[in-house]
Amino acid sequence: MLKVIAEDFIKPESVDTVLPLYRELVAATKKEPLCIAYDLYRDEKDPGHFIFIEQWPDRAALDAHCASEHFRRLVPLIDQHARKDARYILMNEQVDPDIA
Amino acid sequence: MLKVIAEDFIKPESVDTVLPLYRELVAATKKEPLCIAYDLYRDEKDPGHFIFIEQWPDRAALDAHCASEHFRRLVPLIDQHARKDARYILMNEQVDPDIA
Repeated sequence: MLKVIAEDFIKPESVDTVLPLYRELVAATKKEPLCIAYDLYRDEKDPGHFIFIEQWPDRAALDAHCASEHFRRLVPLIDQHARKDARYILMNEQVDPDIA
Repeated sequence: MLKVIAEDFIKPESVDTVLPLYRELVAATKKEPLCIAYDLYRDEKDPGHFIFIEQWPDRAALDAHCASEHFRRLVPLIDQHARKDARYILMNEQVDPDIA
């Protein structure tokens, strides 16, 4: 199991432009057969800070997502409005509270 | 609904010391009546980078968590082993793909 956090930082004046692109990306990604979770949130203190919380069965599924038509078409359009580089965290280990 | 990402950055030599503290914190928090989700992950590239992905009904529930006995006892013990300040994102809005 692979959990992913991907953060985008969008220029304030571009937020209304990227929102429909994000909506299309989320809708298309949720239809990918290997997608377990792909939810997009906004920082309550910074409306241009978009945060994806994703879950994939494995790295191959994430790679397939990044190679999809919708990803390759929409992400460059979104990135044109970035104010700084995106930030990614890949997590494949969950701390289990039941192991003493 | 409130989603939270909380990131801790622990010194490499302290990871084995903090792991049981994190396990106790996760186990106790999951028993809080208002806790919807409280899962702790580790960055696959940085074993001292711990990431909580949390969900609470509202800000009052998060405040109650931060005032709990287990939080006030365990978090300062964990923070003694931090190599830099924690990072928090609070998100109260999800981008809905169904709104065209």
